[in-house]
Amino acid sequence: MSKGLPLRSSNFSAWYNDLVKKADLAENSAVRGCMVIKPYGFSIWEKMQNKLDKMFKKSGHKNAYFPLFIPKSYLSKEADHVEGFAKECAVVTHYRLKSDEESGGVVVDPKAKLEEELIIRPTSETVIWNTYKNWIQSYRDLPVLVNQWANVVRWEMRTRLFLRTSEFLWQEGHTAHETKKEAEEETIKILDIYSEFLEEIMAIPVLKGIKSEGEKFAGAVETYCVEALMQDGKALQAGTSHFLGQNFAKAFDVKFATKEGKNEFVWGTSWGVSTRLIGALIMAHSDDNGLVLPPNLAPIQVIIIPIFKTKEDFKLCLEKAEKINDELKSNSIKSEIDSRENYKPGWKFSEYEMKGIPVRIVIGPKDIENNTVEIARRDILEKEIIKQKNVKKVVKDTLINIQKNLYNRALEFRDKNTKTANSYDEFKKILKNDNGFVYAHWDGSKETEEKIKNDTKATIRCIPINIKGKKGKCIVTGKHSERMVVFGKAY
Amino acid sequence: MSKGLPLRSSNFSAWYNDLVKKADLAENSAVRGCMVIKPYGFSIWEKMQNKLDKMFKKSGHKNAYFPLFIPKSYLSKEADHVEGFAKECAVVTHYRLKSDEESGGVVVDPKAKLEEELIIRPTSETVIWNTYKNWIQSYRDLPVLVNQWANVVRWEMRTRLFLRTSEFLWQEGHTAHETKKEAEEETIKILDIYSEFLEEIMAIPVLKGIKSEGEKFAGAVETYCVEALMQDGKALQAGTSHFLGQNFAKAFDVKFATKEGKNEFVWGTSWGVSTRLIGALIMAHSDDNGLVLPPNLAPIQVIIIPIFKTKEDFKLCLEKAEKINDELKSNSIKSEIDSRENYKPGWKFSEYEMKGIPVRIVIGPKDIENNTVEIARRDILEKEIIKQKNVKKVVKDTLINIQKNLYNRALEFRDKNTKTANSYDEFKKILKNDNGFVYAHWDGSKETEEKIKNDTKATIRCIPINIKGKKGKCIVTGKHSERMVVFGKAY
Repeated sequence: MSKGLPLRSSNFSAWYNDLVKKADLAENSAVRGCMVIKPYGFSIWEKMQNKLDKMFKKSGHKNAYFPLFIPKSYLSKEADHVEGFAKECAVVTHYRLKSDEESGGVVVDPKAKLEEELIIRPTSETVIWNTYKNWIQSYRDLPVLVNQWANVVRWEMRTRLFLRTSEFLWQEGHTAHETKKEAEEETIKILDIYSEFLEEIMAIPVLKGIKSEGEKFAGAVETYCVEALMQDGKALQAGTSHFLGQNFAKAFDVKFATKEGKNEFVWGTSWGVSTRLIGALIMAHSDDNGLVLPPNLAPIQVIIIPIFKTKEDFKLCLEKAEKINDELKSNSIKSEIDSRENYKPGWKFSEYEMKGIPVRIVIGPKDIENNTVEIARRDILEKEIIKQKNVKKVVKDTLINIQKNLYNRALEFRDKNTKTANSYDEFKKILKNDNGFVYAHWDGSKETEEKIKNDTKATIRCIPINIKGKKGKCIVTGKHSERMVVFGKAY
Repeated sequence: MSKGLPLRSSNFSAWYNDLVKKADLAENSAVRGCMVIKPYGFSIWEKMQNKLDKMFKKSGHKNAYFPLFIPKSYLSKEADHVEGFAKECAVVTHYRLKSDEESGGVVVDPKAKLEEELIIRPTSETVIWNTYKNWIQSYRDLPVLVNQWANVVRWEMRTRLFLRTSEFLWQEGHTAHETKKEAEEETIKILDIYSEFLEEIMAIPVLKGIKSEGEKFAGAVETYCVEALMQDGKALQAGTSHFLGQNFAKAFDVKFATKEGKNEFVWGTSWGVSTRLIGALIMAHSDDNGLVLPPNLAPIQVIIIPIFKTKEDFKLCLEKAEKINDELKSNSIKSEIDSRENYKPGWKFSEYEMKGIPVRIVIGPKDIENNTVEIARRDILEKEIIKQKNVKKVVKDTLINIQKNLYNRALEFRDKNTKTANSYDEFKKILKNDNGFVYAHWDGSKETEEKIKNDTKATIRCIPINIKGKKGKCIVTGKHSERMVVFGKAY
């Protein structure tokens, strides 16, 4: 029953690529590195947006929209920032095409060259802080708590659907504050929102931590992150929340009059999650039969399939299916019927397995006789016969159980694949045989981080917070280490 | 009480520009022609999106996402299409910046030149039909009913916030059908959705019609539109729905196997409304005091302002305000309290008038004594004292009445400013003294259309549908005319 998907165990990467296509989530477009998000894939993104947007708004954030274009000179104003993004910028140089007499086609009109090139935003700190300069004069104007849902472009050489694409969709929050403390609190507040979203909605356990200098956002003082473990033991950075200090305020001269009448630079944060989360969702839960969706994110939670051979059966089964569908819908369960006559039940079963619908209900002539239905769970691929009168309760409970089970399964997997290395030999041995998270002592230097990466391909995923660490000695240099950090091979 | 806005009657254009800024809706960005949509302006766009998205989904459409970039060669595949858009294309030519030793800044890396230039989508027919080629093989794959919410770029020389900006936000629907009839029905179905949205949600009466050859979408067989009249008597195209025939199917070779086993080109439609609608909203209803919002689109429908001089008053008034706020909210009314102590009531009144909040409730110490509140309507700027126990009912009724009144007022204005010209002299006289819609007979030729535009600045807004017209003679040439068409000076 592999539905033509490669097995995860034999080729995880091929399995992923194939699943994205067969579950109708996305496909490569004719433009290198850009994807088309298909309606089914997009409906999952819409669910994510909807839940996150509510969480942002509940915590006082408002949406706005800033330009797609960033003048080249803006990007250069924060030194680390431009260094981090210069190599992957799509650049607009002209604003007009014209007919080409020779070829009969169109060419770029050389007369329509821009005085200053425009960069397609890879992220919007620069254009936003340039705007904040006008919005913020006094402490009364603070905090500014703004988010935008937008497309961004980072020209990638090696792309993969959802995980790394030249254009992707995301949200980017950009906040401005009176004090360092308030900005730091905002950074953590957002990290907690991301972690809550990942764990409770996406059913993916995450490590919360701080990035090392080498891995932090270009322009940030400190980058906080949520890191998740995929089924192949590779780590995926699921979201980041940056404490920007006064870096962008200084680059764009954003000052405010304090309550005491002083003039000070504003403190900033920025934070984002992207369509990459759909990649995380797939790689955390799905199996060799296709996508597995947590009920809290499933655009369709229950699919009802009537089974019939005769016209009379069809009528009876469909009637019953509609009754159940109505009952579920009126209980806020996203339920649908597939009564198409030109598709066989077996085909439908495979199709909805591939698409990850959490619960399948089948109603056949026997069920009409016995007042039963067959209910099947996508996560464990088990089914049972239940009484029709219990459908609502069983479905409700099952959705809750699937959500819990997916989280617990992912947590168990992560625990099983999290190890501690007390020496560099042990470290290398672990990462040679397996992937996974590895806790180890590190001396805090860039050089050691680099050496470990070159030797093992593992990078520091984060310096975990909320876990009290003990002091020790770096596994590579033997130098002092304040605490263990988490290594992993990363997407 | 003009709040510093220019009067509409003395300078409509300055009034508009000032209102957009003072009501905190949007501002120009540092990038020529691009706007920043501020949180309050964006919250109105979110309301519009939300309502429209529901209407699209209810009629069977699904959202998806297609790339921002269009290869130059795609744009050229449909001849009229490229002619229509070539002159306003932002063109990406490079994908990397590099440090410049000389200046110390960054420059475009000449080594990172794209083989084929990419156009920032001005609209997505080409990239989408290129995708549909792979989605559609058989009649079973049809119809495809897809919409996307996206940013698009059309390089404009003269820009105005919301009305004409180089980058704007919109939705673009792109559907594919088996038959001409079905595609034509889809075009009209969407026109009806737009018209319903404009009239019932935005409270703006519209004319539904067909564009003349000269005004239709580049690449369409027929462009349907909804046209609205602004308070300065100028017309605004509020939305368009295009019947594309088989033009894009032919350009991108999109064929399907029919039920009968033949191989035929697919029929298409496309349709869109944009952030321009916010411009329409402003110019249809607002007054010299600021924005006027129809309750169906107002992010805040009711603002409650407690008024106080002493601490005791404040406590009592605020308590009462909170009670009323809770009651309204639990009745699905979007209500908020402004209890800020560092702003004076007068300042708050002006502020919420400027922002167009439909209903204002004021509670002062006298109201506590008398169990009353003061309720004020933004549309007619009238207020009355009512009993506290009636607040819920009065607010509900008032919101309904404001919505109706705005529509009726706009309709009355349009009727008053719609005239019929039976001769070209009469036509010119009307348009010399006034703006407005002018019905007149036209011979159907491009030349006559052009002459009228040169003489009077008026263009054919649409050939109205749903209104039975009589035959007559063209006011310019005296040639046969099937029916009157509607002229106006347009935004």
